[in-house]
Amino acid sequence: MGKKEEFVKEITNIEDDFAKWYTDVVIKADLADYTETKGCIAIKPYGYAIWENIKDYADKKFKEVGITNFYMPLLIPESMLEKEKEHVEGFAPEVAWVTIGGGEELEERLCIRPTSETIISTMYAKWVKSWRDLPILGNQWCSVLRWEKETRPFLRSREFLWQEGHTIHETAKEAEDRTLLMLDVYADVIENLLAIPVLKGKKTKKEQFAGADSTYTVETLMKDGRALQAGTSHYFGQNFSKPFNIKFQNREGKEEYVYQTSWGITTRLIGAVIMAHGDNRGLKLPPKVAPIQAVIVPIAQHKEGVLEKSNEIFEELKSNYRVKLDDRDNYSTGFKFNDWEMRGVPVRIEIGPKDIEKGVAILARRDNGEKETVELKNLNIRLGELLNEIQENMFKACEKVRDERTTVAYTLDEIAENLEKNQGYVKTMWCGDQACEDKVKEVTGAPSRCMPFKQEHLADVCPVCGKKATKMIVWGRQY
Amino acid sequence: MGKKEEFVKEITNIEDDFAKWYTDVVIKADLADYTETKGCIAIKPYGYAIWENIKDYADKKFKEVGITNFYMPLLIPESMLEKEKEHVEGFAPEVAWVTIGGGEELEERLCIRPTSETIISTMYAKWVKSWRDLPILGNQWCSVLRWEKETRPFLRSREFLWQEGHTIHETAKEAEDRTLLMLDVYADVIENLLAIPVLKGKKTKKEQFAGADSTYTVETLMKDGRALQAGTSHYFGQNFSKPFNIKFQNREGKEEYVYQTSWGITTRLIGAVIMAHGDNRGLKLPPKVAPIQAVIVPIAQHKEGVLEKSNEIFEELKSNYRVKLDDRDNYSTGFKFNDWEMRGVPVRIEIGPKDIEKGVAILARRDNGEKETVELKNLNIRLGELLNEIQENMFKACEKVRDERTTVAYTLDEIAENLEKNQGYVKTMWCGDQACEDKVKEVTGAPSRCMPFKQEHLADVCPVCGKKATKMIVWGRQY
Repeated sequence: MGKKEEFVKEITNIEDDFAKWYTDVVIKADLADYTETKGCIAIKPYGYAIWENIKDYADKKFKEVGITNFYMPLLIPESMLEKEKEHVEGFAPEVAWVTIGGGEELEERLCIRPTSETIISTMYAKWVKSWRDLPILGNQWCSVLRWEKETRPFLRSREFLWQEGHTIHETAKEAEDRTLLMLDVYADVIENLLAIPVLKGKKTKKEQFAGADSTYTVETLMKDGRALQAGTSHYFGQNFSKPFNIKFQNREGKEEYVYQTSWGITTRLIGAVIMAHGDNRGLKLPPKVAPIQAVIVPIAQHKEGVLEKSNEIFEELKSNYRVKLDDRDNYSTGFKFNDWEMRGVPVRIEIGPKDIEKGVAILARRDNGEKETVELKNLNIRLGELLNEIQENMFKACEKVRDERTTVAYTLDEIAENLEKNQGYVKTMWCGDQACEDKVKEVTGAPSRCMPFKQEHLADVCPVCGKKATKMIVWGRQY
Repeated sequence: MGKKEEFVKEITNIEDDFAKWYTDVVIKADLADYTETKGCIAIKPYGYAIWENIKDYADKKFKEVGITNFYMPLLIPESMLEKEKEHVEGFAPEVAWVTIGGGEELEERLCIRPTSETIISTMYAKWVKSWRDLPILGNQWCSVLRWEKETRPFLRSREFLWQEGHTIHETAKEAEDRTLLMLDVYADVIENLLAIPVLKGKKTKKEQFAGADSTYTVETLMKDGRALQAGTSHYFGQNFSKPFNIKFQNREGKEEYVYQTSWGITTRLIGAVIMAHGDNRGLKLPPKVAPIQAVIVPIAQHKEGVLEKSNEIFEELKSNYRVKLDDRDNYSTGFKFNDWEMRGVPVRIEIGPKDIEKGVAILARRDNGEKETVELKNLNIRLGELLNEIQENMFKACEKVRDERTTVAYTLDEIAENLEKNQGYVKTMWCGDQACEDKVKEVTGAPSRCMPFKQEHLADVCPVCGKKATKMIVWGRQY
């Protein structure tokens, strides 16, 4: 086992330095790499395959609720970006400007989209005439650019991949319903595909999207107790439709401005998967999103019949599962075990000469290290069951972390203490005053996460100002 | 029929002005729209759904031949772009430069990728150490930007969507084989999905990609007889691996530079579909790539039972086909017929009170206008057969156009005459001298398309210089 332990040492201990452990996993598991374009990463095939699985799952769910995809230009003229006041204030400081094209200085500079509300609103204004043209339920999968000062792979990168959905509606009610429906789709993706429980709620005014009427969020908790905002869905009311002139003739024949939403999830979800599930051996992937669900590692593969039987098993399993046969002859079995554990493959299938004699294989679980012996004739079915068990078990493990790290506080000091001791979600009441919200952040370093949909009455007063409070809010330091 | 003819008039007659017909179809069929970002289009949901079908088909084929996807940064530092001399000369004049980011002038300007050989070569150089790391078979689906002066939707746009595959190999032979293998995949996509026959061949030095050793192409012919380069696959030899230092230790333990390829198809394939198949009624989509394969149009839908039966049919067909029910109550049946014909839907299913009484429906083909009556109990199976027949028939129709427009010429005058009369492909011999190639283009306006893999010996001499010629070449004016 000496070799094994040595190998694992290459990854920083998770308890010693979580941040360093994280980047070690990103690099060693071949998820991404740094590039010569400052602040931008290259997403390597193994990391991109995770994104493809997220994309395929989410896109299917989007289409089930009527969303269609389109593609809008990458470049936005400066005058267009400036039409909605709060929006431009929020984004202008962190955009990249194209000033030269085809060898000539441009008359009007163009920004690389930091998000596409402005250009999409401009197009929607052209496309809508009557209520019969509504709703428009559009989405695009693309990259966006925000000139971040400090970056970390997947979590905060100057360029990142995402989807941005943009819908317009006849009524405020319909648009608000859509905002919440898309939040439910995100919760589905994050809980059922990524096996991470979410906290659903509404953002405070301070934390909402630049230009939104209200922002809803699905929050997640990482292994170190820090929160990560995993997806947001915004209701704009008529904030964009008025400056962008998206008007329609309503059912009464009168001109009216549309009601609008937007919503997005990004490649930071890959970061969430790493930090919600990983351990000292490296990455730990939920079976549903894993690019490789099971890896077959032949034992003593030089012996007669071992590679043949391994190949046979591979051929049998590959139509039902994403499976790989590791028949590399230049690595030891121990190295292979470590390598695939580090890459987070949910199940390892071991098959050696003795197993073949007995007509069995060994299944080793990545999530809890347990092993079981399975008759080869049952392997196909048992693997499916096991992958489901692992998926469920990983979700439960995250729920446990969340429960253990969720606390209640009644004073500002308690919020700070709880965060210092435990990080996590701290639930308190809140008067609704931004001054109190600012104070909590200033003292504890934790912004508000959201006002959860599932409200509880913890106390009668705000822990900061002592005034009457009827809302429960959750605080937490964040990625 | 008055209403119908009036409707079709909105599209310019294809014989009167092919170019105007083309943009009419793009706009009226809701494939794309102009934007306020000069030279860039918005791809609308109906157009994007065509691209999604192309992407899904091609991506599956890529994966079958071992390709994996990744994602590389959008922005390339100027010094990186300049490393390969021919490449930078080819692309630098048409790039867009980011000079300001996060409110500050950048120390080094960054170009928006016009293609990614440079940044991908830089990463490959980091990733490869030994022959055991080879081949790397990477690809990305993304957008690129080239500052074109004259633009046309899908055909030539400043920003367009594409995939760019980049592979590196141990040997020249393996890389050359991969170049040709990917060309075969493109031929598969274009012939089997898009129902357009291709002419496969090698580009001349003059027409090849900036920095390539050799460029292979799949050429297609549009209805007006102009050629369209539908996909290209490039063999680089060590042209990039030397300046970018992509070295590996070979099987003999010696350091060597890798052998490299790249290959791409773009959203201009949507333009090819429009121009290869369309007619005076508008778009005509091959069933395999059509976002809607069959549209159900109820006749007299206000009558009892018609909408119920239409819905029943829709429910039955939708698990096997991409089908739509048009139950809009504010349009006449005639308008709906025209509308879906204009959008190129391959089959219309008509169902009215009399049909229901007889237990039948009418199937109307978009490709040739033929109608047939089908018993409802056979509808599911018959629709599948019919879609296959249409796919095949559309391919044959394109073959016929290609055959009729392919001519042979023995003198420079004949090349010019043939093109003037017939456009199309003009086959001649060629001595291999670029001066003769330049002359043909100067006199006829037609660049060389390729030296086809299927060679014929048409004559002994070059039609331009009269010197000995052993190669057959094809000329054609292009999009």
